[in-house]
Amino acid sequence: MKKREGKKNEKVDCSDELKRYQEEHERLKVLLNVTREIATELQLDKLLLVIMDEVKKAMHADRCTVFLMDEEANELWSKVAHGGEEIRFPSHLGIAGHVAATGEVLNIPDAYADPRFNREIDKKTGYRTYNMLTFPMMNKLNEIIGVFQVLNKKQGAFNKDDEELLNAISAIAATQIENAQLYEQQQKTFNSFIETLASTIDARDPLTAGHSKRTAMYSEEVAKIVGLSEKRRNVLRFAALLHDYGKVSLSDAILKNHHKFTANQYIEMKSHPAITRDILEKINLSKELQDLPKIAASHHEKVDGTGYPVGLTLNEIPEEGRLLAVVDAFDAMASNRRHTERMNFEKVIKILEEDSGRCYDPRFVEAFKKMKLDRLIMILEGDSIELLDGQDLKFLSEYTINDLIFELRYDTNKYNGVELKETFNKYYCRDYLKNRR
Amino acid sequence: MKKREGKKNEKVDCSDELKRYQEEHERLKVLLNVTREIATELQLDKLLLVIMDEVKKAMHADRCTVFLMDEEANELWSKVAHGGEEIRFPSHLGIAGHVAATGEVLNIPDAYADPRFNREIDKKTGYRTYNMLTFPMMNKLNEIIGVFQVLNKKQGAFNKDDEELLNAISAIAATQIENAQLYEQQQKTFNSFIETLASTIDARDPLTAGHSKRTAMYSEEVAKIVGLSEKRRNVLRFAALLHDYGKVSLSDAILKNHHKFTANQYIEMKSHPAITRDILEKINLSKELQDLPKIAASHHEKVDGTGYPVGLTLNEIPEEGRLLAVVDAFDAMASNRRHTERMNFEKVIKILEEDSGRCYDPRFVEAFKKMKLDRLIMILEGDSIELLDGQDLKFLSEYTINDLIFELRYDTNKYNGVELKETFNKYYCRDYLKNRR
Repeated sequence: MKKREGKKNEKVDCSDELKRYQEEHERLKVLLNVTREIATELQLDKLLLVIMDEVKKAMHADRCTVFLMDEEANELWSKVAHGGEEIRFPSHLGIAGHVAATGEVLNIPDAYADPRFNREIDKKTGYRTYNMLTFPMMNKLNEIIGVFQVLNKKQGAFNKDDEELLNAISAIAATQIENAQLYEQQQKTFNSFIETLASTIDARDPLTAGHSKRTAMYSEEVAKIVGLSEKRRNVLRFAALLHDYGKVSLSDAILKNHHKFTANQYIEMKSHPAITRDILEKINLSKELQDLPKIAASHHEKVDGTGYPVGLTLNEIPEEGRLLAVVDAFDAMASNRRHTERMNFEKVIKILEEDSGRCYDPRFVEAFKKMKLDRLIMILEGDSIELLDGQDLKFLSEYTINDLIFELRYDTNKYNGVELKETFNKYYCRDYLKNRR
Repeated sequence: MKKREGKKNEKVDCSDELKRYQEEHERLKVLLNVTREIATELQLDKLLLVIMDEVKKAMHADRCTVFLMDEEANELWSKVAHGGEEIRFPSHLGIAGHVAATGEVLNIPDAYADPRFNREIDKKTGYRTYNMLTFPMMNKLNEIIGVFQVLNKKQGAFNKDDEELLNAISAIAATQIENAQLYEQQQKTFNSFIETLASTIDARDPLTAGHSKRTAMYSEEVAKIVGLSEKRRNVLRFAALLHDYGKVSLSDAILKNHHKFTANQYIEMKSHPAITRDILEKINLSKELQDLPKIAASHHEKVDGTGYPVGLTLNEIPEEGRLLAVVDAFDAMASNRRHTERMNFEKVIKILEEDSGRCYDPRFVEAFKKMKLDRLIMILEGDSIELLDGQDLKFLSEYTINDLIFELRYDTNKYNGVELKETFNKYYCRDYLKNRR
């Protein structure tokens, strides 16, 4: 700086300064662009990928990784693109760990010439690290919340200008990451809240325990089979978890009666979907969840209009409600909630088929029968999942309910009938429990 | 631009360009700074104030207002600093309305010379508008989500450069506003969810209806009197709303029994705070709400250690739990849930005083008695608030429970005894209902 000041009156000064401004200008534009891209993402997983991608481009580097601190686990973790698994390691390990612990900036121009670099990582991954810049990410309170690691600058090693740029990006990234974490925490709370509500109704009647959760899991399977979008599957999941919530206001005489209702009791019992709807409608739901009360309340509607609470017909019932009706009925029959033993599986499916077109939308009965048998057993036996045999599940994953029904009815060996029935019954009839005892 | 290109080889060119870069540089720095300030705020109210302040500074203007679209109400609204009321008007009105509807940028260099400007507004507010720039705020999908209005540039009128700067700020502000709206929506959902849970328990036993809500409102009053922070009051509010939630799993024989329990029934009844805790502990709560289960579960603990579920003593019981115990007991006696008429008010307070130091922390009994009588009546009579007389409430707002008790006991006229007792009893004894009938 002092040198330059000495030359102040010479003409050449101006173009020097101009160059400096041009470079600075370029950097600010890059920074602004990165900021804009980062600010639009509030989903933590996606945000991390956006940040890594933007920083890589802005720094003319080959790779960029963001490691975040997990204070509870004392670990650093990172997201991998394309849905790969997370990377996790103890938060004091390696160069990233050092930077996370000390807040020091580590600029290593020649990795293999530096004793701090561990070549084993390159050996494992097959990647060749030439140079790297590792930078602490601090929030507004100057707490280190993670680490940037930028690898292999395209020309030469990382310089002071690069460090400054990353410093500026880091501040903005930290803010948005904390926003996203807050948002994620809220979503987790909301999710667990709904699951808690679902288990409330189980708490009153242990005989039906787990019904809401199983209904949600079956719904997810069928929704995937018919190709429902992720957004709609999300609403469906909440609706499935809460569909029976209205039952909390039923009297014990109704709720714990698993035999025969009097006419009046039957009327009271039939009020529960409408109560579910009334309760859910009181909740200030986001746009995406607007249909939740209606869907949850329609699980006892029948496509011929003879259901309750409203008596809607086929197209008046929300699709998700029609789907819910099938899996709700299935679980009521196939879980051992009203019987010491489950209803015969062939009979359960026969009832669904017979009521298809009258009670149920045939589309969802058909979709239900396309479910893989390993999924079915895992959901059905969720309360004793540790007793399921991996080999059996792998075998069952090759067949659908349709295949099993075919074998049960026609007794061929088209789908490995003997083994299929035996393996399925081992779980469906809970024989594996007896064997262990 | 073309003019400048012609001069390219002259020496003066360089300093011209340098000036341009310097200005641009300045603007980018301003923009970056605004961005950084905006990005750190996720609370919508505060965010809007930050944006208005930052834009005002960045644009060298005297004022800046952000109007947001409220699609449901078809209104534009804005936040006013220092907790003033919102401004709201139909979304097609005025210059802001025009810009919101058309997406046009309106740069008015001389407001009073422009027919589109409505001088009435200045007349009302006493403000003198010289020039103004009104700019649509668009989100990523190019939907207009609001309008910027910047008033009275400090030197000259707003120019093209100002418009460009505001354009860049606008994009970033829109993103963060949408993030904040999403976050706010989630919080609203969470709040209404808790209120829904609270009303679930009421749904099973109409005799206790409203108890959870009233307990929450009394808690808020007492918490303010003892100076609890906003954060802690927030947790307390949720704990108060949910303290009896465990009762959902009690059988009808217990829940609807308002007379005498058998020994076994009493044991079952006493299980409800622990069930509340168990249910709430299943929820994935944010750090700020970590203490919720413990607080909610401690409302039947007694400071002498004879309470349940644990038998904690004074300092082992969370402060909020001790506060809750007082207001819970008060509402149980003073609401007409177990009796057709409320328990005599003097007697209710006497019981609290007698049990102070044994059941209750004296600090919170004393704080409770400092409550203003208008607040007490408004909470107590929340279900028929339309029957409360404004004059009466104003009168009652000048006295506390302590004042009333003094008059009830010693019958002086120190606190306007005759009128005070009469006005209070009119509501506490629900005489006003009879009078109307």
